[in-house]
Amino acid sequence: MSAAPGNALVARRLGIDSHDEAIAYVRADCAVCRSEGIGGHSRVTLKVGSRAIIASLSQVTESWLAPETIGLSDAAWQRLRLATPVPVTISHVPPLASLGLVRRRIFDSNLTEAEIRAIVSDISQGRYSDIQITAFVTAVAARPFSRAETVAMIRAMIDTGQRLTWPDEAIFDKHCVGGLPGNRTTPIIVAIVAALGLKIPKTSSRAITSPAGTADTMETLTTVCLTLDDMRRIVDAQGGCLIWGNSVEFSPADHAMIRIERVLNFDSPSSMIASVLSKKVAAGATHIVIDIPVGPTAKVRTEQDALALEHLFLETAAAFDLTLHIALTDGRQPIGRGIGPALEARDVLAVLSNQADAPPDLARKACQLAGALLEMAGKAGPGHGEALASQTLRSGQALARFQAICQAQGGLKTLPVAPHQRPILAACSGRVLQIDNRRLARVAKLAGAPGDKAAGLDLHVRLGDRVHRGEALYTLHTDSPGELAYVLDYIDSNPGIVAVG
Amino acid sequence: MSAAPGNALVARRLGIDSHDEAIAYVRADCAVCRSEGIGGHSRVTLKVGSRAIIASLSQVTESWLAPETIGLSDAAWQRLRLATPVPVTISHVPPLASLGLVRRRIFDSNLTEAEIRAIVSDISQGRYSDIQITAFVTAVAARPFSRAETVAMIRAMIDTGQRLTWPDEAIFDKHCVGGLPGNRTTPIIVAIVAALGLKIPKTSSRAITSPAGTADTMETLTTVCLTLDDMRRIVDAQGGCLIWGNSVEFSPADHAMIRIERVLNFDSPSSMIASVLSKKVAAGATHIVIDIPVGPTAKVRTEQDALALEHLFLETAAAFDLTLHIALTDGRQPIGRGIGPALEARDVLAVLSNQADAPPDLARKACQLAGALLEMAGKAGPGHGEALASQTLRSGQALARFQAICQAQGGLKTLPVAPHQRPILAACSGRVLQIDNRRLARVAKLAGAPGDKAAGLDLHVRLGDRVHRGEALYTLHTDSPGELAYVLDYIDSNPGIVAVG
Repeated sequence: MSAAPGNALVARRLGIDSHDEAIAYVRADCAVCRSEGIGGHSRVTLKVGSRAIIASLSQVTESWLAPETIGLSDAAWQRLRLATPVPVTISHVPPLASLGLVRRRIFDSNLTEAEIRAIVSDISQGRYSDIQITAFVTAVAARPFSRAETVAMIRAMIDTGQRLTWPDEAIFDKHCVGGLPGNRTTPIIVAIVAALGLKIPKTSSRAITSPAGTADTMETLTTVCLTLDDMRRIVDAQGGCLIWGNSVEFSPADHAMIRIERVLNFDSPSSMIASVLSKKVAAGATHIVIDIPVGPTAKVRTEQDALALEHLFLETAAAFDLTLHIALTDGRQPIGRGIGPALEARDVLAVLSNQADAPPDLARKACQLAGALLEMAGKAGPGHGEALASQTLRSGQALARFQAICQAQGGLKTLPVAPHQRPILAACSGRVLQIDNRRLARVAKLAGAPGDKAAGLDLHVRLGDRVHRGEALYTLHTDSPGELAYVLDYIDSNPGIVAVG
Repeated sequence: MSAAPGNALVARRLGIDSHDEAIAYVRADCAVCRSEGIGGHSRVTLKVGSRAIIASLSQVTESWLAPETIGLSDAAWQRLRLATPVPVTISHVPPLASLGLVRRRIFDSNLTEAEIRAIVSDISQGRYSDIQITAFVTAVAARPFSRAETVAMIRAMIDTGQRLTWPDEAIFDKHCVGGLPGNRTTPIIVAIVAALGLKIPKTSSRAITSPAGTADTMETLTTVCLTLDDMRRIVDAQGGCLIWGNSVEFSPADHAMIRIERVLNFDSPSSMIASVLSKKVAAGATHIVIDIPVGPTAKVRTEQDALALEHLFLETAAAFDLTLHIALTDGRQPIGRGIGPALEARDVLAVLSNQADAPPDLARKACQLAGALLEMAGKAGPGHGEALASQTLRSGQALARFQAICQAQGGLKTLPVAPHQRPILAACSGRVLQIDNRRLARVAKLAGAPGDKAAGLDLHVRLGDRVHRGEALYTLHTDSPGELAYVLDYIDSNPGIVAVG
């Protein structure tokens, strides 16, 4: 329904960072809300000119907010595209029919393509509150998407976001399902394959449950928030890019769902596959290498789970004519030394620069995965991709291409260094028997990663290494003494994160 | 861990009604947060003296909030029991181990009693954010509690709340699973059975998904927010009471979960049974009548579903030595005329006062259910309870007891009347073929119920009635013209809510 005349309040930017949720604050005695019958905790429509958004209403009883103003959280202010305190009209939200579908998905039955499209469309337009998004995300975690639902979800996410097309026949991409700290192979792979002429328009996410995502790491080296036009220009010139997926809005609904999954610290297989493949299809990819690390404390714990996930990827990809190469990799311990955005970036630079102390496991794994892409592209015969990748790395071609991509994205930055560092020492001598990926990731997060770019940890040992009592197993990097005390507390109460015996 | 000295900010009451969630607002450039490494969207511990709560942190970049102050939502201010702007220390929240159990419940397996206890304990102490509570609530909706989990949930909820005990051998109670608009039998039943000497310490909820709960309706007549001591005193004197369950804190965790279910507009069978029976056990009840209305647009749609629910109730009750009488009742249409807090209260008073125009269906159903309680208590032989109840109603004893209970709770109020009323007319002549309970409830809610006590609707017809074109089917009651326009819009686009043909 249209808003009645005169029901306007003057917008005020409150500068409240409400975690992307649009929130409007009005006085409980606000005349406009009283005449419209709008109470506390309502969802309301806010309109400025032809632009309308949905927000959650919070009532205020104290006088810091003036009676005829409407205070806006940053998300609300930005979605309304305001710059000055203009009048905003406030009205009831039309009933959201798709919420009934979410309830049905929770209690009864799977959804049709049209039903999923209705939910995704409403989420992508910011019509769901955090609680409503959480219910949908949890429902499809507890009872996973069917194949048809996953395909429908991907189509709906593509259709509600931006999309790239390329004149080339084959467009390459790479994805890791995660769960292994460090393991920052993507920048190295992109540099190698782009140097050899492949087109790889790579977008990456920020961390969902981990101490760093590729976007977090790349942000310590260059600009990752770029437009779709920037992306196209950079890939046309350099063959590859390394940018943050959300900045190109391939899928606003996915963005909203991942934000909730980050709070809940989970992502479920079928919704993860929908999220990954929708972004790949939107980026125009046709050939993709998927890295699935397998290990007792990785995200995928057994080979059986890995094979099930591989099957899910392959059957979903078939609906979109995607060629996938699935690599089941060793997930028993982190790859590389650094865990945290800047520490991982340092490892990436070390590998690309062929430094003597570069982590060899990171170089080897990046070359294996790059090799798989090169074989898919026909640049190397079967079994010869890794050698070609390795040669491209050693020759300095990969480094040159990486630097060119970073220049195109806005220039190379100097890596930040955390002011507080503290080694964690072995309590006894012996061999490194186990490394708990999950709890090590937790340590890096408690140290401040990925929010603090320089925070995290440096792992000094690998499985099987012989260490002496008092030798450093890993070194914490933090920005504040408060965090340092806090993470030491966690380590004290969780012995054996790196088990020596 | 303990807070570092000097990390205090001065509390400021912001008067923000944040839907019961404790939220703390601090400046993004706040020195305390920077030195502690506390970033946006963190969960933080706030401490004043020995009192500590957990809150969500929102960062503020505008100057309306002073740098060294911490703005508090009403929920945070109240849980800290503040009256003046005292210093509040802010620190990291210890990792909540029970969130890992919620994730496990979503993805893998059922929970043990100890695990459920850990979750319920954390929720009851306000340690979960809304998103985290939503994940748990949705998980147990999508994959219902096992019998063992339901029993564990009830035990955990009882143990984390207050509890009443009585010297009497038998304590009575009554519950309706809901789904039928109107149907406000509880106040009548309590009045009848209390007048006949039964002890019925009745607590009720506010509406979860409906236009009114018994607590909403009773609040238009008397005070329903009373303490546990008040409750005991009133029941000792009058045999019964009619108060709001949350005010006596039988189960703070249930309170938090129901708040989320209200936003999501659902409640699932096993979590509903846990919620209901935990409150009954906490109130000391031993004998309970459960009303399950069955009809195509009621909450329980088929007899098969009703029997499954009955089974679930009985097997769960057995673990707590509760005697249940389950009544499957006619749920094809609303009971009584009013739908909305004050309109239902008016019907209740009309029945209790034996007014000539009192809705006969409401009187009959209340007597049937009261009769079942009287038979359980041995006050009437099998098959004779309803007649005894009816006689107690007609004699005025029930009215006298109802008035005495309301006096004991703080006195009888005058019912509010909505300023805007609008009849909805039959579009053709014929018989009333169908009444859509769900959409009729929706109409009453869009009219403003239960937030506006006087809002809702009056239903003038019943199934099978003959009506003429232009005759009023029901009358809307609203507090504001905005709501009236809005609900008329909904009725226009939803023909056949009361189907005539």
